[in-house]
Amino acid sequence: MATTGKQLFTTLAPDGTLTLELVDSQFPDPTGNQVLVKMEAAPINPSDLAILTGAADFENAEYSPGKVVAKMPEPFNSGQKARHGKRLPAGNEGAGTVVATGDSDMAKALMGQRVACVPGSAYSQYAIADAAMCLPLGDHSAEDGASSFVNPMTALGFVENAKIDGQDAILHTVGASNLGLMLNRICLEDGMKLVNIVRKDDQASLLKDQGAEWVVNSSDGDFMANLRSAINATDAFYGFDPIGGGTMVDSCFKAMEQVAVSKMTEYSRYGSNQPKRMFIYGRLDFSPTTLTPSYGFGWTLSGWLLTPFLQMAGMETTMRMRQRVLDGLTTTFASHYKTRVDLEGMLTKEAILDYRQMKTGEKYLVTPWG
Amino acid sequence: MATTGKQLFTTLAPDGTLTLELVDSQFPDPTGNQVLVKMEAAPINPSDLAILTGAADFENAEYSPGKVVAKMPEPFNSGQKARHGKRLPAGNEGAGTVVATGDSDMAKALMGQRVACVPGSAYSQYAIADAAMCLPLGDHSAEDGASSFVNPMTALGFVENAKIDGQDAILHTVGASNLGLMLNRICLEDGMKLVNIVRKDDQASLLKDQGAEWVVNSSDGDFMANLRSAINATDAFYGFDPIGGGTMVDSCFKAMEQVAVSKMTEYSRYGSNQPKRMFIYGRLDFSPTTLTPSYGFGWTLSGWLLTPFLQMAGMETTMRMRQRVLDGLTTTFASHYKTRVDLEGMLTKEAILDYRQMKTGEKYLVTPWG
Repeated sequence: MATTGKQLFTTLAPDGTLTLELVDSQFPDPTGNQVLVKMEAAPINPSDLAILTGAADFENAEYSPGKVVAKMPEPFNSGQKARHGKRLPAGNEGAGTVVATGDSDMAKALMGQRVACVPGSAYSQYAIADAAMCLPLGDHSAEDGASSFVNPMTALGFVENAKIDGQDAILHTVGASNLGLMLNRICLEDGMKLVNIVRKDDQASLLKDQGAEWVVNSSDGDFMANLRSAINATDAFYGFDPIGGGTMVDSCFKAMEQVAVSKMTEYSRYGSNQPKRMFIYGRLDFSPTTLTPSYGFGWTLSGWLLTPFLQMAGMETTMRMRQRVLDGLTTTFASHYKTRVDLEGMLTKEAILDYRQMKTGEKYLVTPWG
Repeated sequence: MATTGKQLFTTLAPDGTLTLELVDSQFPDPTGNQVLVKMEAAPINPSDLAILTGAADFENAEYSPGKVVAKMPEPFNSGQKARHGKRLPAGNEGAGTVVATGDSDMAKALMGQRVACVPGSAYSQYAIADAAMCLPLGDHSAEDGASSFVNPMTALGFVENAKIDGQDAILHTVGASNLGLMLNRICLEDGMKLVNIVRKDDQASLLKDQGAEWVVNSSDGDFMANLRSAINATDAFYGFDPIGGGTMVDSCFKAMEQVAVSKMTEYSRYGSNQPKRMFIYGRLDFSPTTLTPSYGFGWTLSGWLLTPFLQMAGMETTMRMRQRVLDGLTTTFASHYKTRVDLEGMLTKEAILDYRQMKTGEKYLVTPWG
């Protein structure tokens, strides 16, 4: 017998009309290794917004209860041609209680338990999830567990990736985000040096209060000099950036190269031999990334996504990371929320215009049952 | 007893004044593994222009016999702070006759021979070179051997690098350059599929006449569709670009991703799982590289330089590549020159304004003895 509940869908029409809508969905009985989770809490992460709001115009959208219709401008509409006409669920992760399971032992063992899960359809009263990706939360609340995958595994993934690449220092361009603060705690635990870039003095204070040694404010007039000092002190030639657009990656490469050149004894027209590595793992800024010809040819810039990294790192590493998250759920890996909204509340103008800004430290939590 | 000859130097003053000047230099007797080469021919490659002309204003420069004084605009002047005040030789490679050697057996064996060499100071009547990097030319002329290192080893390096990375197709964004034509010949010999991008119909014809199967003209209105077809036919998700600035790399990533997405059976908000790799190995365009958020996170862009590649590939691979170049010096690895100039001729307004444009197929050869 199918279960019925409210679920959010996002649909982009070929003409650029983006519709977010609550629908009464029927959830089939889980089979095999699936579980049916009654969702209690799901965060709105930047990675969710890519599909939820994207670059659409929500200032001039049509709002009605449980429904929003907005226009997606070019080139973002045609850039997403592959999803045109597809009604997509949203919400990467969340937490809730397992109310039905498939036949597998792994699935059956979760019956009745509160779990964190990664269904990709977490903005919903129910979600079908893979038992292998569920994390039993024990006595933790759904809110404690709601953000236990995307940010914790990403932050841990940076440190794991750095270790795999033989680095002992990392640069992070949005130091005071939920993920940034988490990364700072992980790095302190692991003795990994971390250069944090922030935009405001209070963000710098926050990080320093939490033990961060190298914090650089990009709004300061001497930002580049301070960044060079921090890189010089740490040898952080390896960084992660969630902004994507604009000149932040370029500034990091410049500072890295200037530090490397300052340590050279002889001039080379090709710049330093120091490999410089940056990863873009988000798109807080949709504008183009600009790279200037000012740091030679010894640099590499990549996109970074959690899933391919975990595939590369392997199951054993992934399980070790998951266990570490569970052990530190309310300490190292704690997330903080600005506010809570239900599914209808997610689709109000006030809420969308606020959470889509992805302001540092102002994350929303969706509670699908109110 | 020191040998005397004319040599070109390039000096950038802190105020942005770039001076190119012929100087009577004294060349010390070679020691150890060094040889003294009487230079007979040296090409002007784009990689030489970085230090020779850069972004300086040669339209309004002061020209006198054997000397040019030009202004280097910002940000290019401060970007080259590391060379401020340094009088630098120029000319990566060339060919000539060994007229004196150091004590090592390797050096002594080259006495009297015509060799190709990589002295970094080839725009000169004499140059001190490393015997280990000299290629004895046998009966070949100096002109035949002048360009036997930079372009041949770079083009071969692309194919070697692609093989190391498990690729069997390459994309090259300036297909009709000297290097591009060479790459086409290498790929035909090795069965490596090659997608060539050109800007003009006659360049496309030239490549096709030389057996190229996939040639795409970026000036055509259906460039992107043609590029996608070529990538679809070859699976060339791995490319090399000497332009650097502008949107060419972005266009390649876009086309690669669109091809990969077209082969997916299910939509993913994160784009395809197809890794996309581009290398920037030159800066024909000094403007910033712009990367748009339109191909997910499965991409990597790196600078590419020959020397670090050869270090990574190892001595055995390097020697094998060198031997292959020598075997195909007048066939696979032949270079063509638009014109010949002597050292004074290099520094005339007419010559500089022409060769600094780095037009496809219009390479200059410097003959230091006229």
